[in-house]
Amino acid sequence: MSDVQTDMERLLKALDQQHQAGCKTNDIEVLRTLSQEIRDSNLECHIGIRGDEIVSVRGRQTRQVGLAIDLGTTKIAGYLVDLTDAKIIATNGITNPQTSYGGDVIARLGAAMGDAGDAFRLRAMAVEAVNKLANQLCSDVDMSPKDIIEAVLVGNTAMHHLFIGLTVSQLARSPFLSTVSEALDIKARDLGVNIAPGAYVHFLPNIAGFVGGDHVAALLAIEHTVTDMPIIAVDIGTNTEISLLSQDGITTVSCASGPAFEGAHMRDGMQADSGAIERVKIRNGSIRCQTVDATSPIGICGSGILDAVSEFYIAGVIGEDGKVNNNHPSVREGKKYLEIVLVDKEERDGMRDIVITQNDIRELQLAKAAVRAGIQSLLDTSGCHEGDIKQVIIAGAFGSYIDVGSAVTIGMFPPLPLDRFRQVGNAAGTGAVMALSSMKERRKIQKLMSRTRYLELAGESSFTKSFIQASYLGQYRLVNGVREEFY
Amino acid sequence: MSDVQTDMERLLKALDQQHQAGCKTNDIEVLRTLSQEIRDSNLECHIGIRGDEIVSVRGRQTRQVGLAIDLGTTKIAGYLVDLTDAKIIATNGITNPQTSYGGDVIARLGAAMGDAGDAFRLRAMAVEAVNKLANQLCSDVDMSPKDIIEAVLVGNTAMHHLFIGLTVSQLARSPFLSTVSEALDIKARDLGVNIAPGAYVHFLPNIAGFVGGDHVAALLAIEHTVTDMPIIAVDIGTNTEISLLSQDGITTVSCASGPAFEGAHMRDGMQADSGAIERVKIRNGSIRCQTVDATSPIGICGSGILDAVSEFYIAGVIGEDGKVNNNHPSVREGKKYLEIVLVDKEERDGMRDIVITQNDIRELQLAKAAVRAGIQSLLDTSGCHEGDIKQVIIAGAFGSYIDVGSAVTIGMFPPLPLDRFRQVGNAAGTGAVMALSSMKERRKIQKLMSRTRYLELAGESSFTKSFIQASYLGQYRLVNGVREEFY
Repeated sequence: MSDVQTDMERLLKALDQQHQAGCKTNDIEVLRTLSQEIRDSNLECHIGIRGDEIVSVRGRQTRQVGLAIDLGTTKIAGYLVDLTDAKIIATNGITNPQTSYGGDVIARLGAAMGDAGDAFRLRAMAVEAVNKLANQLCSDVDMSPKDIIEAVLVGNTAMHHLFIGLTVSQLARSPFLSTVSEALDIKARDLGVNIAPGAYVHFLPNIAGFVGGDHVAALLAIEHTVTDMPIIAVDIGTNTEISLLSQDGITTVSCASGPAFEGAHMRDGMQADSGAIERVKIRNGSIRCQTVDATSPIGICGSGILDAVSEFYIAGVIGEDGKVNNNHPSVREGKKYLEIVLVDKEERDGMRDIVITQNDIRELQLAKAAVRAGIQSLLDTSGCHEGDIKQVIIAGAFGSYIDVGSAVTIGMFPPLPLDRFRQVGNAAGTGAVMALSSMKERRKIQKLMSRTRYLELAGESSFTKSFIQASYLGQYRLVNGVREEFY
Repeated sequence: MSDVQTDMERLLKALDQQHQAGCKTNDIEVLRTLSQEIRDSNLECHIGIRGDEIVSVRGRQTRQVGLAIDLGTTKIAGYLVDLTDAKIIATNGITNPQTSYGGDVIARLGAAMGDAGDAFRLRAMAVEAVNKLANQLCSDVDMSPKDIIEAVLVGNTAMHHLFIGLTVSQLARSPFLSTVSEALDIKARDLGVNIAPGAYVHFLPNIAGFVGGDHVAALLAIEHTVTDMPIIAVDIGTNTEISLLSQDGITTVSCASGPAFEGAHMRDGMQADSGAIERVKIRNGSIRCQTVDATSPIGICGSGILDAVSEFYIAGVIGEDGKVNNNHPSVREGKKYLEIVLVDKEERDGMRDIVITQNDIRELQLAKAAVRAGIQSLLDTSGCHEGDIKQVIIAGAFGSYIDVGSAVTIGMFPPLPLDRFRQVGNAAGTGAVMALSSMKERRKIQKLMSRTRYLELAGESSFTKSFIQASYLGQYRLVNGVREEFY
């Protein structure tokens, strides 16, 4: 009777003794569980604190973990992180179920714009996938999603808007406006994400309508390793984001490189799954193909096409303008286009040949031209020269597969020594994990954003010119605006 | 294409120009509606701001209003307030539907403790009633509940815990611990309250397990009008809260005055509805009764019993110890107890008499003794003397009905000149409206709380002594701890 402190007062006093003064919570779910958890644990419980907010009170002994999600258009990658030492303790990836609405973001934005029910279903699909991933990761280490006291989610702006449930009609139409670009902290339960009762999902800021928090996360991870500037950071996909990091700040462009790198819109194109030709070399006139998982070839993925075009270009089978030379023995007349045969049907038990068509080469030319012209625009705007670039950092799944030498040969990247290129894998995921584990990293992101400028290529007159010139194969340099061979 | 600001940036810039710099929002529902509302209104919309948080974006022209709720055990009072001038524009009251679980809080706490389903239903009942009240108030002034951008809710600690959905088992058992006593700001949608998308419900702080935010609100309203201290503020109900406000701060006690004041547990008792005898006077030996709405008498309510006991005490029909004097013509032997007949069955078309029994008088004695002993404990603790009290402020519905002279006569209040008593009606509601309209008032509450001390009467040895002495009718003063007649 003489001790009439409220449960909250008792809790705050205990935190005070643990040098956690000034904590508080207004979270209805934390408040609802508080008195019971305290009593169930016989006054010994584990408190999740975020800044000065109590986000979880748990009776049973538990590690406190966080969840980082890279919500890609095609794939969702999840990382479970022990927040006491920032170590990744489980990781997994699943296909984004929204792909049933179309492989690219435009199809999904269109569906969400046209019908509120579709917008709801797209959101529910992604949320359910994240919950599934969280469950899988937690069960891998014998924990419960309720132990996740913080999450970070990165994704392109379309994924971000669809996941939160923001209106997308203004995002899908020129001038492609986001509702919001600042970092957001949203209660997980408001999103339908089932983790600790009071936990938040932190969304990294977006740079523009087509440059999302995933690129920001990649920049965070990349900046961490940079010693010498300027550098180019490029994340290749259906949409390619490219940033120039220099002493003057960061300039970012976005260019529609199309689906060629994903193996789509190609006659024998496929994703980088088992049986996809991922490497092509010509040695002594004979074509050697390497497939994913070293199984029998069934098609060709983006990195394979890149290699093939580079090798056939060097061999003179494909000209600088991308035209296939009909005189070569591997070339034949196809139904619509000239074709280069990579794998003969003789080797495939009677199934048809695997070929690259003239049209496939055109698709690749457009894709690689977008990347190169984007880089060129960044250089033009900043007054940098190609040779000044200390590093080209290639992020993302596709970027990790490619042969950089081939990419340089066909002119997708500037003609720099190969040791200036670095393939870093999923930098967005790495950055998300960094932002998850450390408020200091989040403050760094704020600073990074204040130094970052978005350059809209559609408004740049020089871009179209660069693009046309970059669509040629081979290396070149511009002399007074005119293309001049480099090799 | 040259203007690629996000919708949020555009909004914040506009607010900046309206001298509302530094606003922000992380509210998922505000974010979800933002882009559409801005476009629907052709870039002219109305923004609800709370501190620095944007809680509503509305396209159509609208007044911004707030909702104050006094969630009583028996009645729920609602006030719709224009936030631009803090004026009440609509008010209404409905019965608390939780009464189906029992008239007093103990019954409801018991139900909620015993069964999670009952706890849920009790919560849902109160939430639904608040939504209903909000709808009624808004339709009275041709507005929508979505125009309500802030709400304040006050109630006793049990109502507060049940409404939020906090665990009540620790509140219902000695030492009656609250989960939390601090003021809370909880998103209305988390509570199920349907107002503006990002609006909060602000809960005033509680003082103790049995002294809730309603008493705090009453203190706020009362302090506003106080010029001279010390004063006593008393809110009479099934549970009576009493505070002593002096230069040294505020001391508050809570005493179980029981249901007598509500007319319950009395043979012919009833609530203060139509036909309830609310005033009793004896003039020239004859009994005159006044009923609510001046209709035929059907029972007697709390204020009527108070009057009757006072009048019969003065007339010598009831002794100082509460015993009924059998020699009086209005007194007769009842089935179990002596009875005083107020209304003869002759006057009631053959329906039975309306009487006050010896037992009814005992119930009233206990109720009024609790109030008086509570006041005495406050005086004892603070070293104040009765005569020092500059004002006794009587708040609450029941307190507004009573004849203060009668209350003093029977010794419920100290023997002070009647002009020192002031009946202020629903001070809790007034305080809630003040807290709704002004952040300054909320800061005042913080200060008020820091000056307020709860005195647990169960731990005060002198309380039992005071209580026994206060159960006698008539006025007295204590001389060396011994009762001495005053009148």
